[in-house]
Amino acid sequence: MANDFVISNVKMFKPNGSVEVANIHITNDKISAITQGEVTGAKVIDGKNKFATPGLVNAHTHASMTLLRSYSDDKALMDWLQKDIWPIEDKMKRRDIYWGAALAAVEMIKSGTTAFADMYGPCMEEVAKVVDESGLRGSLSQGIIGFADGDKKLAANVELYKNFHGAANGRITVMFGPHAIYTCPPDFLKKVVGEASKLGAEIHMHMNETKTEIEDCIKNYGKRPFEVVAETGLLDLGMLAAHCVHLSDNEIEIIRAKKVRVAHNPGSNMKLASGIAPVTKLLDKGVTVALGTDGASSNNNLDMLEEIRLAALLAKVDTLNPLAVPAAQAIQMATEFGAKALNLKNVGRLEEGCKADIVLWDMSGVEWQPNYNPTSLLVYSANSAAADTVIVDGQILMEGRELKTLDEEKILAEFKACANRLTGN
Amino acid sequence: MANDFVISNVKMFKPNGSVEVANIHITNDKISAITQGEVTGAKVIDGKNKFATPGLVNAHTHASMTLLRSYSDDKALMDWLQKDIWPIEDKMKRRDIYWGAALAAVEMIKSGTTAFADMYGPCMEEVAKVVDESGLRGSLSQGIIGFADGDKKLAANVELYKNFHGAANGRITVMFGPHAIYTCPPDFLKKVVGEASKLGAEIHMHMNETKTEIEDCIKNYGKRPFEVVAETGLLDLGMLAAHCVHLSDNEIEIIRAKKVRVAHNPGSNMKLASGIAPVTKLLDKGVTVALGTDGASSNNNLDMLEEIRLAALLAKVDTLNPLAVPAAQAIQMATEFGAKALNLKNVGRLEEGCKADIVLWDMSGVEWQPNYNPTSLLVYSANSAAADTVIVDGQILMEGRELKTLDEEKILAEFKACANRLTGN
Repeated sequence: MANDFVISNVKMFKPNGSVEVANIHITNDKISAITQGEVTGAKVIDGKNKFATPGLVNAHTHASMTLLRSYSDDKALMDWLQKDIWPIEDKMKRRDIYWGAALAAVEMIKSGTTAFADMYGPCMEEVAKVVDESGLRGSLSQGIIGFADGDKKLAANVELYKNFHGAANGRITVMFGPHAIYTCPPDFLKKVVGEASKLGAEIHMHMNETKTEIEDCIKNYGKRPFEVVAETGLLDLGMLAAHCVHLSDNEIEIIRAKKVRVAHNPGSNMKLASGIAPVTKLLDKGVTVALGTDGASSNNNLDMLEEIRLAALLAKVDTLNPLAVPAAQAIQMATEFGAKALNLKNVGRLEEGCKADIVLWDMSGVEWQPNYNPTSLLVYSANSAAADTVIVDGQILMEGRELKTLDEEKILAEFKACANRLTGN
Repeated sequence: MANDFVISNVKMFKPNGSVEVANIHITNDKISAITQGEVTGAKVIDGKNKFATPGLVNAHTHASMTLLRSYSDDKALMDWLQKDIWPIEDKMKRRDIYWGAALAAVEMIKSGTTAFADMYGPCMEEVAKVVDESGLRGSLSQGIIGFADGDKKLAANVELYKNFHGAANGRITVMFGPHAIYTCPPDFLKKVVGEASKLGAEIHMHMNETKTEIEDCIKNYGKRPFEVVAETGLLDLGMLAAHCVHLSDNEIEIIRAKKVRVAHNPGSNMKLASGIAPVTKLLDKGVTVALGTDGASSNNNLDMLEEIRLAALLAKVDTLNPLAVPAAQAIQMATEFGAKALNLKNVGRLEEGCKADIVLWDMSGVEWQPNYNPTSLLVYSANSAAADTVIVDGQILMEGRELKTLDEEKILAEFKACANRLTGN
């Protein structure tokens, strides 16, 4: 942690959504200055023909599910889960969680992601290890199913929080991860509130993903999911709510009033045919809407640039308004709003005093030409292979597409061994 | 044209949508055999860790509009067209059409596209030149606005047909390009029918793209667009109809009965907020639904892999059916159906006797792991930078991402000069 360098002469995405050419000075873990003009006497990364944005924040994923990528697709939801996904997940061991998350880290860095909110388990301490080693930022939560071994999982989440919240210079944070209203009854959620509130921890939970979930909730509790959850006290702890596809006006009002942050997962919601989240309605109410990929078995990648594009395109066709979610707003959702969603302070903006979480996108490909508007090009034309240099907390994790903290070859070999053992291939 | 080589030991996407490991033998412009086992004594491209699919067919684009990429985005349709796009297009000269299409050719080859249907102008002979030089397959049509200089443009389309239809070993074909019902009144369309039918030419036309178009058509002619166009005789010539977003049941029946081929452009329809085409309904009726990118100012790239993914995702969320447009069907839409849409014989299928239009996708990236299902990985996880080797008509246009027929550096320089002159930057 003795970083001291400058990214010179780079087109930079500013917090207000405009672009200007500047030098970004990095000292230790922070952006120490943003200047104009020539730079001398320092370690310099040449920013010419690069576009600098804040690092992308994946606000909802299940990293180790990379192990299940392409194992089961184009199936009905319950067939997919019950026949294919859950039986394999039941077999996952400590090393699977580690190598699955390690491959996810490689994939995230190579596509410009610098922080992620992960809900999975068991052995979330293995994901913490990957976050530590990779140099990424991770907000981790133990996925808790209230039935069966809920109390054990809740205890594991407590341990995770105690051992890792704030670790690795604050790059690791911990939330509590009650899975969803259909797997965690209200009485169990109250237990979660009890444990999390003792620690001051926040909540990461799947909310209102499918129509069936809403219908079952109304059948069981006479109310919609956010109404039930609000009564448990869970929302008062601070919640990152993934999906939020099907929302009543009253639920949108609850989300606004309780400052729930929403992780919109357009790729997953489209692929699983869950529906289209009312993103513009939420944004209009001032709600923080971030973006996430969901797990790699329902997406099927961890490519945040795709989610940025899908969010911008889907909002337009859904509202029949070509002005909905313009390019700069889509980038903000994946950066500044992502950082807010994960409750990361001074992250997600390229300005003095903020954490140095930065991606340099290489604009040399023909799909970046002509270059009238890098923001528009990144959102509507580029692909994530343009991620050239990735910096987190002032540390360079990738430069010229070469990984600096992770051994891709070794990870790939160990990952394949895990996948083969899990599926018996 | 004396090609004789084998792609050995490659995972191959078969016409029935399944995948098998095989050797693909290429002799001159054709796939001369598909075999199993070891290959000896021939020029061999090692297909290990590659996925072979038919070349992607972009069934609707305006290649030279690459010059307008990122010049105007996130605007209302008429502001975008009238204030930004048309004034620049009015300034386009012969060299702009050439260099714009040349950059498009680079972009298409590098993202796995082997054939495209282009409607633009003036000077479509410049696009023909690019098709000839690049080695791509192109179905070209002169965009004809019936008002103003419609007769002149119609005459230009006649010339284009006479000079280029069937040229370059059949790689260049020509259709007639009446722009749309709102720019070509029925009486003018009858003139087009007269000229095109003399030559036996087919039609490429924008149809039913926006709600306004339908409403205006009903106001002006008392009927919907396909009903009006059917009465002019245009559909009897054979039509490639771009967009087809808003269709009545009667129009779907006309499309089916007249064997109209549809070019679905999900990226453009989403970005411009046009709406969602009833793709599964059309497919269920046996209609050939191909995929297109539209021009680079409404997309903003020529990346067909993105359209494949969007088509698969959008159909699912639109119908709330996770089984809609599964991965193999999405690839077929962009390959076999694309070839049908362009009326290309023996193109779009990897089987003996077909034209050797082939893409090898590099599966070494982490987003291709684990590799249980290459079809699913290509559609839901890969990005187009995985296009490694591109073959058209038996000729290698790119190998190991190195272009073999085009000088990317020179094209980029000339293209930038054109863009700068057009926009005064």
